[in-house]
Amino acid sequence: MTDKKEECGIFAIYGDPESVQKTYFALHSLQHRGQESAGIASSDGELIHCFTGMGQVNRVFRAGRGILERLDNPMAIGHVRYSTTGSSNPTNAQPFLSEYSRGQIAVAHNGNLINATLLRDEYEAYGHIFKTSNDTEIIVHLMAKPSHVVKPDPLGHVLNHLQGAYSLVFLFADRIEAARDPYGIRPLCLGKTENGHYCVTSETCALDAINATYIRDVEPGEIVTLDKHGIRSRFFIEPGTIIPAHCIFEHVYFAKQSSIIFGENVHDVRIRSGRQLAKEHPADADIVIPVPDSGTSAAIGYARESGIPFDMGFVRSHYVGRTFLSPSQDMRDLAVKLKLTVVRSVVEGKRIVVIDDSIVRGTTTKGKIKSLRKAGAKEVHMRVACPPIKHPCFYGVDFPTHEELLANQKKGIEAIREFLNVDSLGYISLEGLLGCASLPADHYCNACWSGQYRIPVSKIVNKFSMERHQMQLFDEHEM
Amino acid sequence: MTDKKEECGIFAIYGDPESVQKTYFALHSLQHRGQESAGIASSDGELIHCFTGMGQVNRVFRAGRGILERLDNPMAIGHVRYSTTGSSNPTNAQPFLSEYSRGQIAVAHNGNLINATLLRDEYEAYGHIFKTSNDTEIIVHLMAKPSHVVKPDPLGHVLNHLQGAYSLVFLFADRIEAARDPYGIRPLCLGKTENGHYCVTSETCALDAINATYIRDVEPGEIVTLDKHGIRSRFFIEPGTIIPAHCIFEHVYFAKQSSIIFGENVHDVRIRSGRQLAKEHPADADIVIPVPDSGTSAAIGYARESGIPFDMGFVRSHYVGRTFLSPSQDMRDLAVKLKLTVVRSVVEGKRIVVIDDSIVRGTTTKGKIKSLRKAGAKEVHMRVACPPIKHPCFYGVDFPTHEELLANQKKGIEAIREFLNVDSLGYISLEGLLGCASLPADHYCNACWSGQYRIPVSKIVNKFSMERHQMQLFDEHEM
Amino acid sequence: MTDKKEECGIFAIYGDPESVQKTYFALHSLQHRGQESAGIASSDGELIHCFTGMGQVNRVFRAGRGILERLDNPMAIGHVRYSTTGSSNPTNAQPFLSEYSRGQIAVAHNGNLINATLLRDEYEAYGHIFKTSNDTEIIVHLMAKPSHVVKPDPLGHVLNHLQGAYSLVFLFADRIEAARDPYGIRPLCLGKTENGHYCVTSETCALDAINATYIRDVEPGEIVTLDKHGIRSRFFIEPGTIIPAHCIFEHVYFAKQSSIIFGENVHDVRIRSGRQLAKEHPADADIVIPVPDSGTSAAIGYARESGIPFDMGFVRSHYVGRTFLSPSQDMRDLAVKLKLTVVRSVVEGKRIVVIDDSIVRGTTTKGKIKSLRKAGAKEVHMRVACPPIKHPCFYGVDFPTHEELLANQKKGIEAIREFLNVDSLGYISLEGLLGCASLPADHYCNACWSGQYRIPVSKIVNKFSMERHQMQLFDEHEM
Amino acid sequence: MTDKKEECGIFAIYGDPESVQKTYFALHSLQHRGQESAGIASSDGELIHCFTGMGQVNRVFRAGRGILERLDNPMAIGHVRYSTTGSSNPTNAQPFLSEYSRGQIAVAHNGNLINATLLRDEYEAYGHIFKTSNDTEIIVHLMAKPSHVVKPDPLGHVLNHLQGAYSLVFLFADRIEAARDPYGIRPLCLGKTENGHYCVTSETCALDAINATYIRDVEPGEIVTLDKHGIRSRFFIEPGTIIPAHCIFEHVYFAKQSSIIFGENVHDVRIRSGRQLAKEHPADADIVIPVPDSGTSAAIGYARESGIPFDMGFVRSHYVGRTFLSPSQDMRDLAVKLKLTVVRSVVEGKRIVVIDDSIVRGTTTKGKIKSLRKAGAKEVHMRVACPPIKHPCFYGVDFPTHEELLANQKKGIEAIREFLNVDSLGYISLEGLLGCASLPADHYCNACWSGQYRIPVSKIVNKFSMERHQMQLFDEHEM
Repeated sequence: MTDKKEECGIFAIYGDPESVQKTYFALHSLQHRGQESAGIASSDGELIHCFTGMGQVNRVFRAGRGILERLDNPMAIGHVRYSTTGSSNPTNAQPFLSEYSRGQIAVAHNGNLINATLLRDEYEAYGHIFKTSNDTEIIVHLMAKPSHVVKPDPLGHVLNHLQGAYSLVFLFADRIEAARDPYGIRPLCLGKTENGHYCVTSETCALDAINATYIRDVEPGEIVTLDKHGIRSRFFIEPGTIIPAHCIFEHVYFAKQSSIIFGENVHDVRIRSGRQLAKEHPADADIVIPVPDSGTSAAIGYARESGIPFDMGFVRSHYVGRTFLSPSQDMRDLAVKLKLTVVRSVVEGKRIVVIDDSIVRGTTTKGKIKSLRKAGAKEVHMRVACPPIKHPCFYGVDFPTHEELLANQKKGIEAIREFLNVDSLGYISLEGLLGCASLPADHYCNACWSGQYRIPVSKIVNKFSMERHQMQLFDEHEM
Repeated sequence: MTDKKEECGIFAIYGDPESVQKTYFALHSLQHRGQESAGIASSDGELIHCFTGMGQVNRVFRAGRGILERLDNPMAIGHVRYSTTGSSNPTNAQPFLSEYSRGQIAVAHNGNLINATLLRDEYEAYGHIFKTSNDTEIIVHLMAKPSHVVKPDPLGHVLNHLQGAYSLVFLFADRIEAARDPYGIRPLCLGKTENGHYCVTSETCALDAINATYIRDVEPGEIVTLDKHGIRSRFFIEPGTIIPAHCIFEHVYFAKQSSIIFGENVHDVRIRSGRQLAKEHPADADIVIPVPDSGTSAAIGYARESGIPFDMGFVRSHYVGRTFLSPSQDMRDLAVKLKLTVVRSVVEGKRIVVIDDSIVRGTTTKGKIKSLRKAGAKEVHMRVACPPIKHPCFYGVDFPTHEELLANQKKGIEAIREFLNVDSLGYISLEGLLGCASLPADHYCNACWSGQYRIPVSKIVNKFSMERHQMQLFDEHEM
Repeated sequence: MTDKKEECGIFAIYGDPESVQKTYFALHSLQHRGQESAGIASSDGELIHCFTGMGQVNRVFRAGRGILERLDNPMAIGHVRYSTTGSSNPTNAQPFLSEYSRGQIAVAHNGNLINATLLRDEYEAYGHIFKTSNDTEIIVHLMAKPSHVVKPDPLGHVLNHLQGAYSLVFLFADRIEAARDPYGIRPLCLGKTENGHYCVTSETCALDAINATYIRDVEPGEIVTLDKHGIRSRFFIEPGTIIPAHCIFEHVYFAKQSSIIFGENVHDVRIRSGRQLAKEHPADADIVIPVPDSGTSAAIGYARESGIPFDMGFVRSHYVGRTFLSPSQDMRDLAVKLKLTVVRSVVEGKRIVVIDDSIVRGTTTKGKIKSLRKAGAKEVHMRVACPPIKHPCFYGVDFPTHEELLANQKKGIEAIREFLNVDSLGYISLEGLLGCASLPADHYCNACWSGQYRIPVSKIVNKFSMERHQMQLFDEHEM
Repeated sequence: MTDKKEECGIFAIYGDPESVQKTYFALHSLQHRGQESAGIASSDGELIHCFTGMGQVNRVFRAGRGILERLDNPMAIGHVRYSTTGSSNPTNAQPFLSEYSRGQIAVAHNGNLINATLLRDEYEAYGHIFKTSNDTEIIVHLMAKPSHVVKPDPLGHVLNHLQGAYSLVFLFADRIEAARDPYGIRPLCLGKTENGHYCVTSETCALDAINATYIRDVEPGEIVTLDKHGIRSRFFIEPGTIIPAHCIFEHVYFAKQSSIIFGENVHDVRIRSGRQLAKEHPADADIVIPVPDSGTSAAIGYARESGIPFDMGFVRSHYVGRTFLSPSQDMRDLAVKLKLTVVRSVVEGKRIVVIDDSIVRGTTTKGKIKSLRKAGAKEVHMRVACPPIKHPCFYGVDFPTHEELLANQKKGIEAIREFLNVDSLGYISLEGLLGCASLPADHYCNACWSGQYRIPVSKIVNKFSMERHQMQLFDEHEM
């Protein structure tokens, strides 16, 4: 699956003498969650310093400019932002730093607020001005509201106004606060470094990256404070009153195979989904091959369950960047081929089961099938480790429009099979997929397949509404 | 004079098919008013596009990145920002673009608001958040206030809240509005391009640059609207109720010699000030030399009045950039020498009158005198075309602190003469200087010499208060 | 295996209307052969144009600078250069363009000349001057020698002076010549585009990238000319007089799995090597996991032969760049972990067979084993798909020094096993490995294992001898 | 005069603990001699390190990249290169570093060799290869020739092969050698730093910049060695056998006013030329104005001699860069106006004498006259401080082609006057100009006016012959 835009990743750490360097490494390990921009904010106890930039972590914080050295402070939060095609905007890079009546505040956000536009309209009506097209900015406006700042727990109070998916880390001059929405849609977990300092992050792979130990997830509806007293927890909703709606697409595609999210390992869930797929949609074939890397785990599961040998029919290039020239159409087709190369000797004359984690638009999938056929595949049996995607996600997954989704374009499986030009096609069933994860089936959000949204959606924020308007591109600054 | 920080320059144009390119050229011609950052915002009638960057105009909009092409729209405003030593901050670059209840708004500002901190505290107390350390941002917050947006003339209403010096251009999606403070502290004028489109700018040199004709100044307290109906004027104060307080330092130093400001040519005023200086402080000398380029006009005037021959004893380098390495003290002294080189054969064995426009800290002046002596000058008679600067400016001139001003460090002219190591020293008198300009003497602000501030100063905005906090440096964006 | 430096990749194409764009895509697909620098030279029939730069292909030729557009000509050659740690030098980037008595010549080289220093000393004694530390430069000096240029076949004559490994493409104003050393040490093959134009490249994956068809290998000792007459072949040695010495390490590590080199598919050879390894060194274990990606094919082979299930115990990050900061030692260890993350649930409590393609220094291997143990692996059985590397390569593989090779540091397999802290260790035998490839065993060079060099080595060129001296770093040029 | 391309500037220093920083400052002060590229080579006694880049000195060696720190060694040479329009080529940046049989050698060159093409052809026939289109490269080939390296004085021997203008500094691992052609066409002088170390440079302004004292000129035909023994001198021609041919255009335009070249101050010569011009071509006028800055000194002289008041009718912008966009013709005309702005109040209604140092193409001069007329000048009397330029320079001044020179396009002074649209026109006479300098008239080259070339020109090197061919643009290197 390559059509999906990706999410964001966040990290926060308090008190470690190498907090900023660890944030840097943690962001590296979260890079799969977003490559558009990266940023780190840190506090020396009194002032917050912040640096954000476009591109991947090692570009933004490239050596020789002394950025990490300048940021070097004992409290830090970091963010990597998802990739968009075309328009990207430096003003939307996070952490978002601003100043309000209580001082400075920096925030990093993973998720999507469904009432951001409503709130924004409301606050604009109150006379507020907005600098970004980010739904994150509204959170700070809520924090700044005079009737909110005087509450006993201003942050808890504010979070009750937000609707949608959010895993958040806030950096104040003297502390960090981390919070997760009541449905626990996006993952967020708590860890401890070897020298005993606490950190919070989207996925456990960031803990692995800095030799930190996974402690537990931040609970849905929980706020965790990291300060000089250690960690403290409180809930801004009554715990247990809301059934979680974890995004199972995190298991299917987003999260790194090595991570533990929603209580279990991602690779395990994917292996089971491959096995389940083999049970639901067996195939008479010679080999099972994945679309690497997102389909690899499921392909191993399918191979194990079916007994058909696993092989690598596609080789993925590690060096294909995202900034191609805009060549002629022929040239563009060539560009697609650079990412995945077929190993002819593996597929020639074979009946092949191809496993992908999901199909969104279907266009690149069609291209991959075509290259298998061109390399001499005798039969191609497509198996997909998640059900047909038919509905938009309002909680942070940037699927294309309803009309662009393949499962909406074509009427029924047979039409899709014909479009993809495969000999057979099987999607895992929704029940089947939910059965591969350990929590009860109703603890996961499955709206993109079922259309059943757990959080009612009234007026959706169009996160690109303002983005198109602002081409405010800041130049590189000589430090 | 090289110790003074410089100001800002602004430009706006409506309806010209080459509006953005003309803005680009106009900003070039205003570059002497600020080299720290530059920016252009343009509107296609519905959306505002904005690009800002650090550095000079031709760096920010350097060819090959397609920026001007992307901005190409019929309405545009532009800004060049003054230079600070050390801290400079991309988030403070202008135009400042944001969105409020009435849509998008971009603003470019020359001047300084003395009640910005007061207003900011007030608006933070109302729950507003601030992204920059600019006093300009508060203006947009005032524009956005619900009780303001419903006024018959919201802009006029808002301007009445501002105290201090401001020449402003606003870009809305469909129009431009230009305004000048009631005291007319900073210059602002109206012009017309060859093909009949209106523009507004800080100095007439920007009109010359684009072959536009000077029409008239924007009056103190006036708002001029540029839109599809042409231009319209209104006043937000009762015209004639306030005696102007034009910054005469614009004539002394800031403005380009070719510009017409406050109704007359800058070079003419400077020539007259040189003549006046010769009358007040004659000298028995062989040659008159300027500290180029700001002292050149006055030196010509002095030479004419005195009959002493004019010569060029200093050569100014056109290539000395501002980003020197930080070498040892010896090396720093060398760095100063690169900017101005003495022509030994001019000064050797001569009795010399040296004309500078002003003396601020006096350290570089002292260095220049030293190099004249080293080159063999027999006598050095320093003549200064403005009175001793003793008081800070709250209206946009970034003088150093009270303690750093030479005229405060030394008790009396004799002490200064001794410090500078000159044979005689003469400052023009305040009356003498004011007599060189055409308007009545009380139409100019002379607070930096007299300490008499026309606008009472209660709580001064420290424009660097937040700047130190935010190192939010945006990376270059690949377009 | 991550300790090895990598090689170079070359490409040439004649007459295609999209020659330069295809070269660009081909270089992308060869990126695994070198990431230090990239370059393209093209000819319009009269003049050669050349652009080289440091870094990966998509950085050097990044959009918006119009480089490919300027190079757009019907004949082109391209080069990607191997990565070195630390010193890298823009003057050494290829193609190497210069002018001699017969006009302009550009050359791109994959391999290593063992008599380059000898020749260089000789030519310096003749009065020649050298601009680079590249062994490639000497080739052009030989081409320029007056007694050579008058030969009936100057290129063939010159190639007879070279000793070592070389696959070469030359661009003259009017033609391309491609040549391969008599031992065929590095791969080089001939292809044809869909519209009938010829191209030459290191690996067939570059042909796949541009939809070209593989025709045949350029033979050892052969020169192929691409010009307006199509292609012509000649031999600069008597064909068949020399037994080839193909670098089998190309199969083991360098080449892309999808490529056909030395007559067969790389993935196939690796699968067979995994099977052979299972026969030679069986293990009593629960799972087989590769060190991705270079060990994946062999691991699949091992799993098939042994019947032990294949799984992915390591996840490889696609985003880890090579320009890390230089942090403390602890931080460096963290950096290693970012590249490969262990999937704890796969390895915990398991007896694991780990397959790597080779072991060079052994330090990173040791780190990987350690992280498996830390994640709870019960037993770790290391299996290596090539024999112990004990001897330097003089033909283009940048192994570390003799002393740094693990197989020389430790006395015997048991000592290595102990060092790596694995429960058992097995290397494939040299005979076993050679049996996995289709050509007779004596058609491959195995000097790095056996120490038997097919080309006698007298005075070895130290390719870094001059590199240290020249820090000639060219600035970015504004186009 | 703005049509002329500029020359190069060179600097060398031996033994100073701050040699590299002083070279950096010296290059700054020589920046007026060339802005296309800059470079510094330094030696630690054994190895030469070199860094060159495109653009001005403070861009190439901008802070934060540690370049000067890496180059920090006690021997250094530096170079700034003249600006060309359009094609510019990083490979041509100097110092030119290479390696030959006697080790490393770096060279920096000001001037032009008229037999470079002949020598190049000859050496290519010997089998040499060339990397640049620089005439400087051939010098190193001559140095490397086996029959030359064994001479008692190889450098002296080699210099006897060169024809044309050259001031040269060579850096060897252990010493510096500086040489000047037998005609002394370009300036070169010797200085001593405050702490007693020797340096060599193009103009004395570079000595002023580092507080060094001018000792004497390097004589025509002299070689000066700077090494651990101090300085030593030798001559490679019999001193006194050749009458010098100093380029008087250095006095007219190139050199900085403060410099002493050919034994006298540049400003003095220009003042005298203005006086002479007033004698030869008096005018009945109200004011004398220069075209700044190159016409300023002569205008002061004219004003003094004529008694007509001096004034500044043009203001020069210090910020107009050279990389303008390529706008429409209208826009280009605007671009010209940005460089010089007319002070209307100075010229309106006046009869004006305009002084320029020289006229080359005449197009920009025509534009300047036009803007004076537009600003209301009543009469314009053009006076030019050098005779009509009619012949190309083969010794380093990049005049346009014969056909483009205004004095060749128009038949006679009256035709030129008409073209420029001035009321009267007067060029200084050749005799008059030569009389303003102190040496005998035949000690100066005046070929550009007289066509009498002191060095016979057989086959002229076309310094752009190869430059067009090589677009070898190196990317910025991350240090």
